[in-house]
Amino acid sequence: MGNALRCSGPGTLVGRPEPLETRLSPASFDERLDKTLLDLLAELEDEALPRTRQDLPIYGILRYHLGYADESFQPATFDAGKRIRPRICLLACQAAGGDAEQAMPVAAAIEMVHNFTLIHDDIQDHSDLRRHRPTVWSLWDTAQAINAGDALFAAAHMMLMRSSDLGLSPTIVLALSSELHRTTLRIVEGQVLDLGFEHRSDVAPDEYLAMIGGKSAAIMRYSCFAGATVAEADPEAIEHLAAFGQATGMAFQIRDDLLGVWQTSDKTGKPAADDIRRRKKSLPVLLLRDRLSDRDWELVTQMYSQDELDRDQVQHVLDLMKRYEIRPLVQQEVQHWHDVAVSHLEAAIPDPGARSELFQLTEAMVDRRA
Amino acid sequence: MGNALRCSGPGTLVGRPEPLETRLSPASFDERLDKTLLDLLAELEDEALPRTRQDLPIYGILRYHLGYADESFQPATFDAGKRIRPRICLLACQAAGGDAEQAMPVAAAIEMVHNFTLIHDDIQDHSDLRRHRPTVWSLWDTAQAINAGDALFAAAHMMLMRSSDLGLSPTIVLALSSELHRTTLRIVEGQVLDLGFEHRSDVAPDEYLAMIGGKSAAIMRYSCFAGATVAEADPEAIEHLAAFGQATGMAFQIRDDLLGVWQTSDKTGKPAADDIRRRKKSLPVLLLRDRLSDRDWELVTQMYSQDELDRDQVQHVLDLMKRYEIRPLVQQEVQHWHDVAVSHLEAAIPDPGARSELFQLTEAMVDRRA
Repeated sequence: MGNALRCSGPGTLVGRPEPLETRLSPASFDERLDKTLLDLLAELEDEALPRTRQDLPIYGILRYHLGYADESFQPATFDAGKRIRPRICLLACQAAGGDAEQAMPVAAAIEMVHNFTLIHDDIQDHSDLRRHRPTVWSLWDTAQAINAGDALFAAAHMMLMRSSDLGLSPTIVLALSSELHRTTLRIVEGQVLDLGFEHRSDVAPDEYLAMIGGKSAAIMRYSCFAGATVAEADPEAIEHLAAFGQATGMAFQIRDDLLGVWQTSDKTGKPAADDIRRRKKSLPVLLLRDRLSDRDWELVTQMYSQDELDRDQVQHVLDLMKRYEIRPLVQQEVQHWHDVAVSHLEAAIPDPGARSELFQLTEAMVDRRA
Repeated sequence: MGNALRCSGPGTLVGRPEPLETRLSPASFDERLDKTLLDLLAELEDEALPRTRQDLPIYGILRYHLGYADESFQPATFDAGKRIRPRICLLACQAAGGDAEQAMPVAAAIEMVHNFTLIHDDIQDHSDLRRHRPTVWSLWDTAQAINAGDALFAAAHMMLMRSSDLGLSPTIVLALSSELHRTTLRIVEGQVLDLGFEHRSDVAPDEYLAMIGGKSAAIMRYSCFAGATVAEADPEAIEHLAAFGQATGMAFQIRDDLLGVWQTSDKTGKPAADDIRRRKKSLPVLLLRDRLSDRDWELVTQMYSQDELDRDQVQHVLDLMKRYEIRPLVQQEVQHWHDVAVSHLEAAIPDPGARSELFQLTEAMVDRRA
């Protein structure tokens, strides 16, 4: 890695590294992000309390969760997720005329904040698996998973502070930090609502959209805000790019909901309908409930009072969704947020050439053929 | 409250408020801190996602934990703890020649970070009560208590950012924020070690001291660092005040350990020895284990494998502590950290008049007559 950030001693980045390639190939992006994250974790481990390494290597747990180590903390490479949030941050920075290199610390911080919320979500949702591996709480217990999430939250901001070493002014770094905390509040509020929804059978589609606006879209909003802020775009362009990110996040989540019901199973060639089987209260079922006759509503409510739905019940719900024309409704919703996103992107970046990569990423993320 | 911070619209503090009284009477300090905290929580609630108030008022939970509301989120006044951390921050600022008014946001942020760690600690330790009231997790479940802690962590930094409105430069605010994240890592590392100690019978006194250096003393260190930084003291004075805070935190925690064993019960007039009954692995018992003969060690290890010790067993451990002269050892340790603290304080603030309040607070906190 010839253009790696060079470090001299703990905590100090020296000199300006060579610029990232403009076209940010996925491979070099991933390599750079990996190095940025691993370097920080190594430095934090060096500064940590004595014995932090022996008894329970908390930084080892973070490496495990981020896909850099196995359960014994030995270096290894695992699926680290799609990393669209840091990627969109760098693209937003470039589109707004900035130097993506300067956005690398905040992009890495975004990925860390996202992963801190995942570690805590997995405890809250009792999820055993994350990216095909056992979750942190399931390996090291709830108490230590709380610690791991808390540590990653703080470490994310230590990462963000590195922006100062790359020439960003204290005012800009403060703006980035402050807005990331505000974003975290939106994510946590979304998670609070989502957990609350589990105990309700009357969640309206609008409430659900507000919830994902916090839990899923706020961090995408922040990614674009941060990229534009690093580029020192004018306030209006920053606001448009932030709104673009928020709308893209909404479209992305709702499309995920759509796939959760209608994505075709490789085995059967029919909709896999995993989200129906698992009784996930995603947008399709909320739209269905909103439209059902009283009799059908009672039937669905009864089925949803079990832990899982059997095959016949899943088919029955799919039939109801067909009868009430739910799929086109969800598709419309994806299209709506896609269009909102594109209009904000056009307002933020008038030059089609400059916005093309961001536009392409959005199109790929929000493929409306599904 | 004539000298309250005046607010115009969410998020904006306008004008410089009148200075805090130099002598910071406990009443006015508490009032000011209350108002600072409640104002921020109200503003955050105003900005929150729709329905955050109805379904599960996360900001209501924070008010509950901080002693400002009852379980139904109705305003009420409860024990909010001793608040020594924000107090020592303001005193350090004044002692270093600064304006305590400017340190109010970071002092409030310190209290919030401390309380975020308490909310998560109570989950981890399965504690039912905190300041004589049910803990957050015991009322609203583990999942929502994780959210409450996360929200308070983010909110603490939103509070800290308010320092900018009081005339502190972005560079100073960044230094405060960055060091608070570093401090949080020390606290979490301390908690990781502490939870790990529960599964070990061979914890050495030195390991214990390293653990409380993170879990208990790091935030006291930060309080003094922050006060001195707001005062724009020279780097050497900041470092001495930080070291003073760290040593005071150590002395304070070890004295707490001492009281946990030898504080006289009002009923019996004898040592209450609560920490022995509950098998708490605090310094006295670790020093004892370190010194026991093999036979006595086995006996104590056997007793400590139960959930609680009965009255005879507690008395037996007290007798062993007497025989092995543990109490004077613990007292020496308190004295040691007290002396370290005082020497750093004298180095930081040469003028005895300027340091007298800080000195008195330390003496009161680390009363060595116990």
